[in-house]
Amino acid sequence: MAEELKNAVLEKFGDIVGTAGLVTEAAEIAPNLIEWRGLYHGRTPVIVAPGNTAQTAAVLRICRDQGIGVVPQGGNTGLVGGAIPHSTLQRPEIIMSARRMKAIRELDADNYTITAEAGCVLADLQAAAETADRLFPLSLAAEGSCQLGGNISSNAGGTNVLRYGNTRDLVLGLEVVLPDGRVFEGLRGLRKDNTGYDLKHLFIGAEGTLGFVTAAVCKLFSRPKGLATALVAIADPDAAIALYSQARIALGDQLVAFELMNRLALDLVVRNIPGTRDPFEESHSWYVLLELGSAQAGPVADQLMEIFLADSMESGLVRDGVLAQSSAQRAALWRMRHTISEAQKMAGAGIKHDIAVPVSKIAVFLRRAEEFVSRRIPGVLVVAFGHLGDGNMHFNLNQPANMKADAFLALWSEVGRDVHSIAAELGGSFSAEHGVGTLKRDELVRLRGGVELELMRAVKDALDPAGIMNPGKIFSPS
Amino acid sequence: MAEELKNAVLEKFGDIVGTAGLVTEAAEIAPNLIEWRGLYHGRTPVIVAPGNTAQTAAVLRICRDQGIGVVPQGGNTGLVGGAIPHSTLQRPEIIMSARRMKAIRELDADNYTITAEAGCVLADLQAAAETADRLFPLSLAAEGSCQLGGNISSNAGGTNVLRYGNTRDLVLGLEVVLPDGRVFEGLRGLRKDNTGYDLKHLFIGAEGTLGFVTAAVCKLFSRPKGLATALVAIADPDAAIALYSQARIALGDQLVAFELMNRLALDLVVRNIPGTRDPFEESHSWYVLLELGSAQAGPVADQLMEIFLADSMESGLVRDGVLAQSSAQRAALWRMRHTISEAQKMAGAGIKHDIAVPVSKIAVFLRRAEEFVSRRIPGVLVVAFGHLGDGNMHFNLNQPANMKADAFLALWSEVGRDVHSIAAELGGSFSAEHGVGTLKRDELVRLRGGVELELMRAVKDALDPAGIMNPGKIFSPS
Repeated sequence: MAEELKNAVLEKFGDIVGTAGLVTEAAEIAPNLIEWRGLYHGRTPVIVAPGNTAQTAAVLRICRDQGIGVVPQGGNTGLVGGAIPHSTLQRPEIIMSARRMKAIRELDADNYTITAEAGCVLADLQAAAETADRLFPLSLAAEGSCQLGGNISSNAGGTNVLRYGNTRDLVLGLEVVLPDGRVFEGLRGLRKDNTGYDLKHLFIGAEGTLGFVTAAVCKLFSRPKGLATALVAIADPDAAIALYSQARIALGDQLVAFELMNRLALDLVVRNIPGTRDPFEESHSWYVLLELGSAQAGPVADQLMEIFLADSMESGLVRDGVLAQSSAQRAALWRMRHTISEAQKMAGAGIKHDIAVPVSKIAVFLRRAEEFVSRRIPGVLVVAFGHLGDGNMHFNLNQPANMKADAFLALWSEVGRDVHSIAAELGGSFSAEHGVGTLKRDELVRLRGGVELELMRAVKDALDPAGIMNPGKIFSPS
Repeated sequence: MAEELKNAVLEKFGDIVGTAGLVTEAAEIAPNLIEWRGLYHGRTPVIVAPGNTAQTAAVLRICRDQGIGVVPQGGNTGLVGGAIPHSTLQRPEIIMSARRMKAIRELDADNYTITAEAGCVLADLQAAAETADRLFPLSLAAEGSCQLGGNISSNAGGTNVLRYGNTRDLVLGLEVVLPDGRVFEGLRGLRKDNTGYDLKHLFIGAEGTLGFVTAAVCKLFSRPKGLATALVAIADPDAAIALYSQARIALGDQLVAFELMNRLALDLVVRNIPGTRDPFEESHSWYVLLELGSAQAGPVADQLMEIFLADSMESGLVRDGVLAQSSAQRAALWRMRHTISEAQKMAGAGIKHDIAVPVSKIAVFLRRAEEFVSRRIPGVLVVAFGHLGDGNMHFNLNQPANMKADAFLALWSEVGRDVHSIAAELGGSFSAEHGVGTLKRDELVRLRGGVELELMRAVKDALDPAGIMNPGKIFSPS
């Protein structure tokens, strides 16, 4: 498909990035044109991988002059089609990859910061921090292949948001190449800097529609030295909310995870994932996995957790509980949580939602949503789990026994809209951590249309008047 | 000066906000036209105080149509002229006050959020949170009169930033009236919401130049139940940085304050503030006030602090230290820190700086800056103190004994520029927490000119094309 771009343009790209940074072979490009869930299939004549910021700027200037679309791509681990070039647009789109810019430029232990390039793989960043006895707390399933630039552009969440925030909260400074090739040099490692508009927040979570992030200064933390991890059984989501409130009071900032899951989620794991087992003798309707991280090594964390659980059992909020007695037991508890998606996949076709509501509204959301889907799809299996402490639920559905996968999946859009509406009525969000991309553009119009979307458009037009950055993502193609 | 606005316009304002919301008497307006440091004296024909969001929108529509400037004003406790209308501009400017919009709309204890209107005084917000056994951690000297809207527009810092972040980090959702009267309804209390650009960050810290904030959803926290507060003597700022790094490792998130001050700061306090005394027998060059907040009541906090201080004395990092044994002693230690500015004022004319650098660069900044000012103003007294954990130093100067106050103060701009340049060379900021306003607009051009300022202008033009919001603040009048 290279013929979509004039050879002269490809040559110009090659002059800038060299042969190491130019991929034009269709077979080599192919893996970058599909997402792992298989929902999107794109096309592009070329992947351009600049070796540094100046090359990035030079490529973007050409694209701006020629009206070529630029699709930033990190580790291609997204879920909403945000990094896949469109196959239907009239103008050509290139993939711009950060993979050759993966240096860790600086680790400042006393400032608790790390400065890294956009192509740095998240796991490498975590490892670099650990080497300096520091913690980079961003952690998610794709950490072995996702890249910092993608994490920033999608404002990635993950399992440590309760304590450390989303990616947005972990970024102190950014270097960004703007759509016209100018470079915003905001790589400052400052905790306080009230000097006009805080421009970095424009680019974080913008899904590559406003510029190409080339590097960032991120916050580091001290490593918790003691961990206590427990799985507890509770009556219902209302009890989970009450337990969460009390856990924050009793454990304060040491509470680092508070994950809710329903009976079916646990059942699917135990049934489908080898080596897992239900740690309780009795069956319960809902479970919470909670974790405490302490700056003190030794038994401090376990003691605190034991006292909290004993109090919670005495008050009747917790019906049963297990506290991990070793790192192997801790890993086993987390494995149950982390393999829910996998177990669900093995049980048939799934419809997935990534909603957020205020924590106080989690129970009413779950009741309303379950009531709705059970009416709409009789026999549907509700696999509800997620980061209760963040108000973020993955309200997932598995196909009923008596329904074909295709017929079930055909309902995704329609059911999704109604589930999103239930969240919206409770002051919630239709995309908690995965973003908008291509998948949820229409929902953005439906649920955040009007002034909110007008403001986003105004920002987009101000920063990318030629509309070359990730066309058709977040906004429908104009 | 009401004649600057046509009576017809004033009547329209009156029709919208009623007599309770309109102030046209010069004597009544006067206190709102000066800042408490006395650096700015403005003028305006009217203060308009809308009673709700709809009234705010209606007033702004008139201002947009008539080309009238709008200066948002909260508690008028700023330090950079950001809330004072100009006296020199050709077009009239009104003050728009949020003081009639001060309701706490909702406190959601389980979601750990509070929704309040812009005119809510910070202390009232803190008190409301406390009533629900929650903590709203924003705390600063002006908390008895500053308002939430001003805190948000200036991204206020204060004494709890180390642990809880700046105001920006405490805001989950905003309601903002745009310059053309449209309302951005973003009052969501969500920890995760990746649905396009995060618009609230445009308005936080924008100093009222992009719209008028009418309400916000803010994060709450659990209240620390145990506090340990210590004042320690150290050799120099390098030792302070090392102590900070070790404190974060040993105490983790429980470290809530880490304040550095030099000998002269302590001396001025002990000399000028009644009831204060140097708690140490020997004289030391530098001091750190550090505080630990624990979720556990009882002696846990003190025990942790004692262990940390013992280790630090054994390693030689800490030369002497006192641990508060009662809340009265704790208050006395904090009083020394909080009265430095007051004590400094009593000692003569002062030149003040509000810089930030990476924490690791604090010592080199202090060396270079002190060397520079001592050369430029022989005999100058350096009063250095600030939030070391935030990299934020108030590098203040008092007049030499042999110099007149006027002659000394005449050097402020020149000396300030050089001190800012020293911070900038170290990757720092010329305004850590006070903002740009009118005072530092030229420094913004000098130190953040080029692409950064161009981007800010592009955002300003996109959101406020008529340029009516707080004209001449952040940006020079065009």
